[in-house]
Amino acid sequence: MSSTTGQLKLKCSFLLQGQTPLFPRIFGHEAGGIVESVGEGVTELKPGDHVLPCFTGECGDCHHCKSEESNMCDLLRINTERGVMLNDGKTRFSKNGKPIYHFVGTSTFSEYTVVHVGCVAKINPAAPLDKVCVLSCGISTGMGAALNVAKPKKGQSVAVFGLGAVGLAACEGARMAGASRIIGIDLHSGRFEEAKKFGVTEFVNPKDHDKPVQEVIAEMTDGGVDRALECTGSIQAMISAFECVHDGWGVAVLVGVPNKDDSFQTHPMNFLNERTLKGTFFGNYKPRTDIPSVVEKYMNKELELEKFITHSVPFSEINKAFDYMLKGQSIRCIIRMDA
Amino acid sequence: MSSTTGQLKLKCSFLLQGQTPLFPRIFGHEAGGIVESVGEGVTELKPGDHVLPCFTGECGDCHHCKSEESNMCDLLRINTERGVMLNDGKTRFSKNGKPIYHFVGTSTFSEYTVVHVGCVAKINPAAPLDKVCVLSCGISTGMGAALNVAKPKKGQSVAVFGLGAVGLAACEGARMAGASRIIGIDLHSGRFEEAKKFGVTEFVNPKDHDKPVQEVIAEMTDGGVDRALECTGSIQAMISAFECVHDGWGVAVLVGVPNKDDSFQTHPMNFLNERTLKGTFFGNYKPRTDIPSVVEKYMNKELELEKFITHSVPFSEINKAFDYMLKGQSIRCIIRMDA
Repeated sequence: MSSTTGQLKLKCSFLLQGQTPLFPRIFGHEAGGIVESVGEGVTELKPGDHVLPCFTGECGDCHHCKSEESNMCDLLRINTERGVMLNDGKTRFSKNGKPIYHFVGTSTFSEYTVVHVGCVAKINPAAPLDKVCVLSCGISTGMGAALNVAKPKKGQSVAVFGLGAVGLAACEGARMAGASRIIGIDLHSGRFEEAKKFGVTEFVNPKDHDKPVQEVIAEMTDGGVDRALECTGSIQAMISAFECVHDGWGVAVLVGVPNKDDSFQTHPMNFLNERTLKGTFFGNYKPRTDIPSVVEKYMNKELELEKFITHSVPFSEINKAFDYMLKGQSIRCIIRMDA
Repeated sequence: MSSTTGQLKLKCSFLLQGQTPLFPRIFGHEAGGIVESVGEGVTELKPGDHVLPCFTGECGDCHHCKSEESNMCDLLRINTERGVMLNDGKTRFSKNGKPIYHFVGTSTFSEYTVVHVGCVAKINPAAPLDKVCVLSCGISTGMGAALNVAKPKKGQSVAVFGLGAVGLAACEGARMAGASRIIGIDLHSGRFEEAKKFGVTEFVNPKDHDKPVQEVIAEMTDGGVDRALECTGSIQAMISAFECVHDGWGVAVLVGVPNKDDSFQTHPMNFLNERTLKGTFFGNYKPRTDIPSVVEKYMNKELELEKFITHSVPFSEINKAFDYMLKGQSIRCIIRMDA
């Protein structure tokens, strides 16, 4: 099924979820795998290479790929509505002659999948796939948001809104950058204990306060934090994250994906007073160019991934992984394809 | 009237306007002058020094002054409501025994004034005061917004909203940075011809289009400009300036001062798609540290000031200067104190 330009077939493992109107399709986008075969025109990968498939790609030729600042490839940028391969508009999955659609170019809840060559990062073959698979989306997103976009300086204070996997990865990134205070904000106070492993030094539950959380944080930090990262997707948290940074130099970064009808609102003087608001997609990492070096951070022990992996289940029990996630019990659950 | 700590008295010239509830007071904040005497504790200035008084200051000791990024001094940041000297809470002007209040620490519509030492930049005495006086507020604000905050790279495209003095200075900054396209946006099409002198290459009047101006600009620039600067203070222009920058790398900078009740509103995906929104105050220049080097840019002929100065009147005819401004006839009008 795979001898077409710019494609490769790989044996894959592991997880995560999405929403889409296109059915039937195979979900899954956060994964690691081994190349099984490559299509015509694929020269930089060969069977046996270890790779991380990514939900967004890097064609290498568009304005975004040629920009040092952007990772929002024109050709292969995430597209939840496309369920087919780009070259011929067809699927590579079927059942009883009927097509089964792809999902964000990865479809990794499957023993084998076919992906565009621009959507896989070739990584160090010594890296354990059942650990570094988590770098193909959420963990890189949060960590990159901190290291590549918020860029706290050594000794600065950082607020992280939302202590799910992405938020904890943002904390981990802030810790790696040398932040002196990492303030975790979450509606579930039980998350604070776990978050300490990721560098969180203080915790704020907005429910515990009568005033807006940005005011609470400003009081804790003599006027505001140096950096803030919003990792929930809640519009109110986005506004709070922006308004809790210090005037003069504060930078807030939006990471969580908002709802379709949300409106970000703030008084423009909050900008005029020299605050910056940025957003990021996949932690500003270019999948092919940058993700291999993130894997090296794990190999060099700069980055610890084990603490993100709280569960592991065989593929036959994949629904357990969803249960753990929906109940808030897991950070990441590995789906073992070999089991 | 001037032997008090941290103050100096200077002979001053030239103009500009403001609004305040405190009366009677002496207006004027964009000026150049010569130190006449210095108060106790003033060590870095002496009589005869040439200076630019600034509407905002730099104490040198607060977190902002010690930050490389901020110029929003805690002690001397612009305060339109304070009409007295900081050290004793009193004015240095009076008439028939009744106090006349100061304005933004400068009060330069006067032959002599008294200002805090933190609010004057000591400049090259060879610089003509009747030219470089315009650097003590608006021109530095616009130029600094481009050079220090938007920072267009050589060859990039820049949109500037509002072609008044600050906007034209932003164009001049973009030109100095090597922008290849400078798109001026203004409701008065007559301003385009003059704006060409400041590097503007294309002009858009939002009134000439049925669609939002951000869409017009996106069409002109294959998806958006690389940088945008908002120099009107209109909330709609602020939103347009942000939404007209390219995803992936676009940076918009707010310069114009909004109304008290304005609300900046946009869809948060505009941030998530890797656009940045910043604001600036006085072009991010620290008055004492940075403004002397801006004067040097004029002395070195990197920056042309003559084209900003369209009129000149003697002090006795100061109201003519307001007329020129209110009718939109002038960019800057010099008030000659010696006339």
